[in-house]
Amino acid sequence: MIPAIAIGARVRKSPYFNKTLEEGVTSFSTYNHMYMPTGYGDPEAEYDRLINGVAMWDVAVERQVCLKGPDARDLVRYMVTRDLGALETGQGRYVPLCDHRGTLINDPVLLPVSEDEYWLSIADSDILLWSRAIAAERGMNVTIYEPDVSPLAIQGPKAVDVVSDLFGEWVRDLKYFGHRETRLDGIPMHVARSGWSKQGGFELYLQDGLRGGELWDIVKEAGKPYGIGPGSPNYVERLESGLLSYGADTDDSTNPYEVGLGKFVSLEREDAYIGKEALARIRDEGIARRFVGYLIGGEPFPVGNQHRWPVRHGETHIGFVSASAWSPRVRSNIGVGLVSTEFAEPGTVVTVAAEQADIPATVSKLPFDIPA
Amino acid sequence: MIPAIAIGARVRKSPYFNKTLEEGVTSFSTYNHMYMPTGYGDPEAEYDRLINGVAMWDVAVERQVCLKGPDARDLVRYMVTRDLGALETGQGRYVPLCDHRGTLINDPVLLPVSEDEYWLSIADSDILLWSRAIAAERGMNVTIYEPDVSPLAIQGPKAVDVVSDLFGEWVRDLKYFGHRETRLDGIPMHVARSGWSKQGGFELYLQDGLRGGELWDIVKEAGKPYGIGPGSPNYVERLESGLLSYGADTDDSTNPYEVGLGKFVSLEREDAYIGKEALARIRDEGIARRFVGYLIGGEPFPVGNQHRWPVRHGETHIGFVSASAWSPRVRSNIGVGLVSTEFAEPGTVVTVAAEQADIPATVSKLPFDIPA
Repeated sequence: MIPAIAIGARVRKSPYFNKTLEEGVTSFSTYNHMYMPTGYGDPEAEYDRLINGVAMWDVAVERQVCLKGPDARDLVRYMVTRDLGALETGQGRYVPLCDHRGTLINDPVLLPVSEDEYWLSIADSDILLWSRAIAAERGMNVTIYEPDVSPLAIQGPKAVDVVSDLFGEWVRDLKYFGHRETRLDGIPMHVARSGWSKQGGFELYLQDGLRGGELWDIVKEAGKPYGIGPGSPNYVERLESGLLSYGADTDDSTNPYEVGLGKFVSLEREDAYIGKEALARIRDEGIARRFVGYLIGGEPFPVGNQHRWPVRHGETHIGFVSASAWSPRVRSNIGVGLVSTEFAEPGTVVTVAAEQADIPATVSKLPFDIPA
Repeated sequence: MIPAIAIGARVRKSPYFNKTLEEGVTSFSTYNHMYMPTGYGDPEAEYDRLINGVAMWDVAVERQVCLKGPDARDLVRYMVTRDLGALETGQGRYVPLCDHRGTLINDPVLLPVSEDEYWLSIADSDILLWSRAIAAERGMNVTIYEPDVSPLAIQGPKAVDVVSDLFGEWVRDLKYFGHRETRLDGIPMHVARSGWSKQGGFELYLQDGLRGGELWDIVKEAGKPYGIGPGSPNYVERLESGLLSYGADTDDSTNPYEVGLGKFVSLEREDAYIGKEALARIRDEGIARRFVGYLIGGEPFPVGNQHRWPVRHGETHIGFVSASAWSPRVRSNIGVGLVSTEFAEPGTVVTVAAEQADIPATVSKLPFDIPA
């Protein structure tokens, strides 16, 4: 028997929660202290919609940490490792966050909503607490709170058609992570070109939690001609695309260089920011592990791994597989994880100690090559 | 159909995880980014064991934030609102934590393990990140990390017999929150007199995550003569006892005075600590809400509320019920939640807007009176 998810008042519900139940959600995880749908009982159809059509996902768990006030801009610059340049309103950026030790603690998207208001659309850690501690200890004049904002993702190659039918042709001109404030039947939201897949799409940052059901229905109706259906951040596609999953792929000592995010660390910036000294030291010393793909042999996995799988080279423990699945497009079992740099070269033959058996595997670059 | 819990590599497993599956766990929630068992399919038996016998709970989700080093003691004092006095090694304390705004952000138990090492056994928020931010911004010489520590709770009136059979008669002399380092069949741990119930008991702070299964079996065997069985932090008993559940009963503006924790705030302390100014202001201004019990009418609830229930006085919205259940001992449906102070007096008649219907209710003191 598969244990149920306990539903109670401690873990928060998305504004789309009841709609996902109506759609027949079959499993939940939690993320940012909220329930997150992870499947609707037909993984093949959900994958197919994302790759070839269009899917709608309740991703309200992408909570926003809003930094607002005279010092908001300075605080953002102090918190992120990137050189943000001019920081144009309406143009978002992917901004890994490190702590003072240079350890990755989240990898949000930053949405500059105005000159003095910034949203961090966060992965699963309490950046609200952390950024408040920083701001307060530094005496900065900024208010930090979680606004009533709940993203609904529309993902897949046909997402742009659905979204332009709803909002107009202008959405086609949004750059990646570009966003604009608008309304749909009076429902306030930001429309952003973004989403946790490489299949293209948009996220509707709903700004009224009481109207989630209404928005769900509107999107579902608009998507009908394109075969829209429910889905969730897709386990298989994210592996194929080599998207990092904070918390799954990382641990309490993961730095951005290990997981391919070194390009988002600017050691050339002249201003101070959290983790700068530590990151310079890490870069100088070099990294011991690297985030890679694995092509894993054997019969197609019926389900992904429930635990991290150790990876060996001969008898030597060299890393782990954090997530794995059968990829219909790569036509192989695939996985991602951290491995010692000396074994990180694509083509290196390794052994994956899966729950069921030891399985031969080959290190791969990320994203995986998808045969035509 | 009740949705399943998604089991994957992102949410961490307890060292007792496989044992809880063997015991027939039927539902999980998550807490501190880990799976937490919430039931084994027989709530009446689980409740009865806690009230009249002895139960064993996987509470490895009570993660430890370890503060270690020359400034650890100063950091602890700066982070907590209580006057800790001499801070004796081996004598734990309940230490609500507030942020700089005086808002409750966690309510851990502090375990002083040595002169320069302190564990915070935390509720569900990322105090690891938060305390690192504080320490780093203040330039304090302290290392902060999550040690390999995973509590196993033994709760109920017969817990003391099980634990003294295992460790010796000395455990009977431990004061509440007192703890001592020891070994059981070579397994390293701290034994503490503590646990999230008012039925008495102990927590074994296992210090080797690879030996969780072994410890589970030892406790199960030792508990057999006393009828031990599996359980989890008990939904009904915590309501009867008026135990605060951080995250369920609190929100992003809850202060300690509202939830009956004012006695753990020392405004007389001469040293600075986080939130002191804000808390002084809050105390002077007085509080607008208060954490109370509700005696709720009608037929016994088959399950607790899944969402917060609004509470009204006439047509006026005055608060909410965060959690509710049928109490066999109070012989009534009961609940807890925050209500406007003007309606917080025991005996005040209110209306609970449950999902199924409006239900008349009466405000009660906490803990509830248990008829003989």
